[in-house]
Amino acid sequence: MDFATFFGIVIGFSLILGAIIIGGAGDTFINVPGMMIVLGGTLAATSINFPVTDINKAIHAAFYIFSGKSITANDVVNTMVRIAEISRRDGLLALENVRTENSTLKKACQLIADNSDPVMISQTLRIEIVALRNRHAVVQDVFKKMGTYAPSFGMIGTLIGLVQMLTMLDDPASIGPAMAVAILTTFYGAILATLLFLPIAGKLKSRTQQENLHLEIIFQGAQSILENNNPRVVYEKLSSFVPPAERKHERR
Amino acid sequence: MDFATFFGIVIGFSLILGAIIIGGAGDTFINVPGMMIVLGGTLAATSINFPVTDINKAIHAAFYIFSGKSITANDVVNTMVRIAEISRRDGLLALENVRTENSTLKKACQLIADNSDPVMISQTLRIEIVALRNRHAVVQDVFKKMGTYAPSFGMIGTLIGLVQMLTMLDDPASIGPAMAVAILTTFYGAILATLLFLPIAGKLKSRTQQENLHLEIIFQGAQSILENNNPRVVYEKLSSFVPPAERKHERR
Amino acid sequence: MDFATFFGIVIGFSLILGAIIIGGAGDTFINVPGMMIVLGGTLAATSINFPVTDINKAIHAAFYIFSGKSITANDVVNTMVRIAEISRRDGLLALENVRTENSTLKKACQLIADNSDPVMISQTLRIEIVALRNRHAVVQDVFKKMGTYAPSFGMIGTLIGLVQMLTMLDDPASIGPAMAVAILTTFYGAILATLLFLPIAGKLKSRTQQENLHLEIIFQGAQSILENNNPRVVYEKLSSFVPPAERKHERR
Amino acid sequence: MDFATFFGIVIGFSLILGAIIIGGAGDTFINVPGMMIVLGGTLAATSINFPVTDINKAIHAAFYIFSGKSITANDVVNTMVRIAEISRRDGLLALENVRTENSTLKKACQLIADNSDPVMISQTLRIEIVALRNRHAVVQDVFKKMGTYAPSFGMIGTLIGLVQMLTMLDDPASIGPAMAVAILTTFYGAILATLLFLPIAGKLKSRTQQENLHLEIIFQGAQSILENNNPRVVYEKLSSFVPPAERKHERR
Amino acid sequence: MDFATFFGIVIGFSLILGAIIIGGAGDTFINVPGMMIVLGGTLAATSINFPVTDINKAIHAAFYIFSGKSITANDVVNTMVRIAEISRRDGLLALENVRTENSTLKKACQLIADNSDPVMISQTLRIEIVALRNRHAVVQDVFKKMGTYAPSFGMIGTLIGLVQMLTMLDDPASIGPAMAVAILTTFYGAILATLLFLPIAGKLKSRTQQENLHLEIIFQGAQSILENNNPRVVYEKLSSFVPPAERKHERR
Repeated sequence: MDFATFFGIVIGFSLILGAIIIGGAGDTFINVPGMMIVLGGTLAATSINFPVTDINKAIHAAFYIFSGKSITANDVVNTMVRIAEISRRDGLLALENVRTENSTLKKACQLIADNSDPVMISQTLRIEIVALRNRHAVVQDVFKKMGTYAPSFGMIGTLIGLVQMLTMLDDPASIGPAMAVAILTTFYGAILATLLFLPIAGKLKSRTQQENLHLEIIFQGAQSILENNNPRVVYEKLSSFVPPAERKHERR
Repeated sequence: MDFATFFGIVIGFSLILGAIIIGGAGDTFINVPGMMIVLGGTLAATSINFPVTDINKAIHAAFYIFSGKSITANDVVNTMVRIAEISRRDGLLALENVRTENSTLKKACQLIADNSDPVMISQTLRIEIVALRNRHAVVQDVFKKMGTYAPSFGMIGTLIGLVQMLTMLDDPASIGPAMAVAILTTFYGAILATLLFLPIAGKLKSRTQQENLHLEIIFQGAQSILENNNPRVVYEKLSSFVPPAERKHERR
Repeated sequence: MDFATFFGIVIGFSLILGAIIIGGAGDTFINVPGMMIVLGGTLAATSINFPVTDINKAIHAAFYIFSGKSITANDVVNTMVRIAEISRRDGLLALENVRTENSTLKKACQLIADNSDPVMISQTLRIEIVALRNRHAVVQDVFKKMGTYAPSFGMIGTLIGLVQMLTMLDDPASIGPAMAVAILTTFYGAILATLLFLPIAGKLKSRTQQENLHLEIIFQGAQSILENNNPRVVYEKLSSFVPPAERKHERR
Repeated sequence: MDFATFFGIVIGFSLILGAIIIGGAGDTFINVPGMMIVLGGTLAATSINFPVTDINKAIHAAFYIFSGKSITANDVVNTMVRIAEISRRDGLLALENVRTENSTLKKACQLIADNSDPVMISQTLRIEIVALRNRHAVVQDVFKKMGTYAPSFGMIGTLIGLVQMLTMLDDPASIGPAMAVAILTTFYGAILATLLFLPIAGKLKSRTQQENLHLEIIFQGAQSILENNNPRVVYEKLSSFVPPAERKHERR
Repeated sequence: MDFATFFGIVIGFSLILGAIIIGGAGDTFINVPGMMIVLGGTLAATSINFPVTDINKAIHAAFYIFSGKSITANDVVNTMVRIAEISRRDGLLALENVRTENSTLKKACQLIADNSDPVMISQTLRIEIVALRNRHAVVQDVFKKMGTYAPSFGMIGTLIGLVQMLTMLDDPASIGPAMAVAILTTFYGAILATLLFLPIAGKLKSRTQQENLHLEIIFQGAQSILENNNPRVVYEKLSSFVPPAERKHERR
């Protein structure tokens, strides 16, 4: 599990709660209509902005950021080297039996085992990479847009509150609390954007970059296996994707 | 019909109306000159910014976001595989009779049936894709620009109101209501941008991305049919455009 | 003449004037020093930012946005098909006599008539397109930058006014009017940017995109004439630049 | 000398000075600690942001914007045509003696005179162009960043002033002047950014674009001389870099 | 050591401290809960946004900006020329023994000494460059995002303070100090972003650009050594990466 994400959210909200409790007037900070306008408005604008399928994918992806087991670039390099060794020892056909959770790697192995045209394999894997990147970009975009709609609806809520307050200036004593309530929606919008939507979009981007790197390693590895099936050459080339400090042994 | 778009707009405006009614002073929120300056000003700036033809296209596109029947990438892949099967069984000339609503697919089939030069077919389809993307980009741009002009005219209206209020400070009691009226145009501008123009631009972008994906599938499919007319190879390649979970059977 | 541009400017300013007249205190809105600081400051910053030649070009381009007669993509496609027909009937040399106002098309015809190297023709036309796009981009950039400098000088004027007002708080009655005057420069800056500079930059961008599309059609058409001088093939390829609904007859 | 740059700065500051003098309270606008925090803070952030060598280059480049003699694209085209004529008449070796201030043109002539590999010449000139563009981009970046740091430090200064003013509300009469002083740093930051840093960055960008255009002409000219040493063909190709109206004689 | 970075931070904070001390009320500026909300909130959002490994790398990189010894482009060019001389004199195999701290140069030498396929060498070095650039981009991104989260949490802190102040308007005398405290978090956020996070991101970008330039020189040098092992040609090509004024002797 990705504890940093979890603790980041917990600690972020705790700090804000702490500041509210220390400063007093804690119950002022709960305003249901204000919450509804910011959260509801953000969801409404988002559902105008994106197809339902994209929003569904985004909701699923949001939970995915808590999941932990991360495969390193080194692992993928090693996998590709092992596959190169298998294909050299047992022939390209042996790749049919490679077991992997990565659907792109599986497809690459099957295409190679099928003795497909190298150009067609290269095009197909390139399509896999670009299509995946585009699909992930849409999901990130949902959260990025929510991160811009939330503060906007926060401001809209505050404007409504200000107009109401300014129209009904009968009781000067009520100006302060009315203004406080008006400001609350801006506060909600800022928290939703800064502590949830934008960082989640960021984490999804990090995940995509990582997965993209892995797909590039698979792509380059498959190319190498097709061109010149030498595990050492495959390793020399793919290890360049890994930071120097993490490379196992530059020379083996 | 795309209900998410429809309900997004309805719920978004309902939430704002609700907040206005709960808070009272509902009639203050209607200010015809303010609405005119924001909406009229936005339309004026837009008609300076874009040729009339582009604005017309944008108005048509705005209704298009409510339309529903969406063809999935899987459908397009299946169509291309079926076309590959037809062309293999009955020869490339049989593609002349393919019935389709997609004008690019129709053109691709005719060009293949005409036995055109493969390079020329590839160039022509690439032009189709780029030209369509550019035309759609202009339409999105109209709404994106409206989404920046609306808040600007909202601010201009507020500045006019503020100057008038500050000049005529005779009656302190009128300061509040005058200020409320001044703020209203900012409120109108924010709502128009956040709940209409920007999300509509976003939805149009989603539609374009989807259509673009379909055109890419058609392009790659036509390439494959021309190069190596094997439906299974066509499927292997094109299925990479589809998310792994939605692929029918990885192996058939 | 491009009436949309003209009416956009007239209606935009009329709406603002109307709001000022309805709200009263119309003479407050005229403040010559304020206008000088916003307009003069914007011009000063612009003349630091750009070479004089670019500013001159921008001033000329600004009038160009009112000019009307627009050639459609369809017209350019037809011209290229006609040129293909001429060159097929009368030989490439006949292109020497083609009459056209478009300097790039004229150059293309002359280069083809001169029997120049196809690669050199392609490079030369590509240079024409890129050079024109870069020249136009500079002109748009002048107006875009003016659209950012105007609000900045509006804010600078307001800051000057605020500092003066706050320093001389002797007469509380003068605070309101002094504040009103201070706000005016922000108002001027916002109007200049939102109703003039930014929409003009937008219109110039639209014109460039259109002209760019025409140059691309000329480029691809010239390529096709050089490669395979068949008017029907030229039409098939170039018609892909035109939206399907505007294509004359898909089949002739 | 580039008088537009010079007069832009002089007139911009004069307008601001004029507005200050007309409005009175001129001495309020001088606040040494405020100036130090804005200018010093901007320089401090800049020296954290950039290596010393880049800042030195930026300072030198800042004076360069006043220098005037500008070579037009036409001049460079003519030079390349003249070089093509020399090389045709006297052989490629004669280019060794070409005298020019442009170091890239000099290098191109020497490489051609040395009878170097055309591919190597092309790569070398491309490196020259890209390396120069990157070096210039850094210098522009220094001023662009100063244009964002200056307003930020202006705001920081204002926040300090506001906190101090709000803490010491003993004498209500001092609120106005204290607030005026607090606002001053925002004013300084806005002027520095809007009238100096950002326009200077813009002018440097214009210069780079011009120089880049000249290098492209040299690059394409050298290519043409190597491929097909015909001055008329060289002219036909390179004249496409020049706006049609400025081309000498389309036909000679 | 990079003294500019060090002094930039020291002087920047000194100027702000000086302004606080001169203006008085110095102890008001210390507010532990406010600091916690800004710094803690920024770290929380950052740890949601990025994987822990990226944040660790960013922390290490932050210290790296103080380190000084910078290798110039000229040094790298000279190294590559020396390597070309060695490889010419002693054969490509002699590159096995080249001693260098740069892991990419070391890898290039080993691959050449191993007599690897030139295309594979080129691909491998290109992967090294792209992978390094992506890794560095992530680290810069951490600081850029911190530079946007810090002001956001500053504003959130201020909103909390404002709501609390407006709710408890019992004692008018406390309004000023309460407002001062509320503004403090905005002040903290602005300083963290403007004087630390954004300039550090900038310095890391400068370092990356420099390292990237060096890797490009190594890449182009290795290409030249493989293609045409002539030290003078290598020098002619690589010296184009260096500004003309810093080139040793254009002719040797």
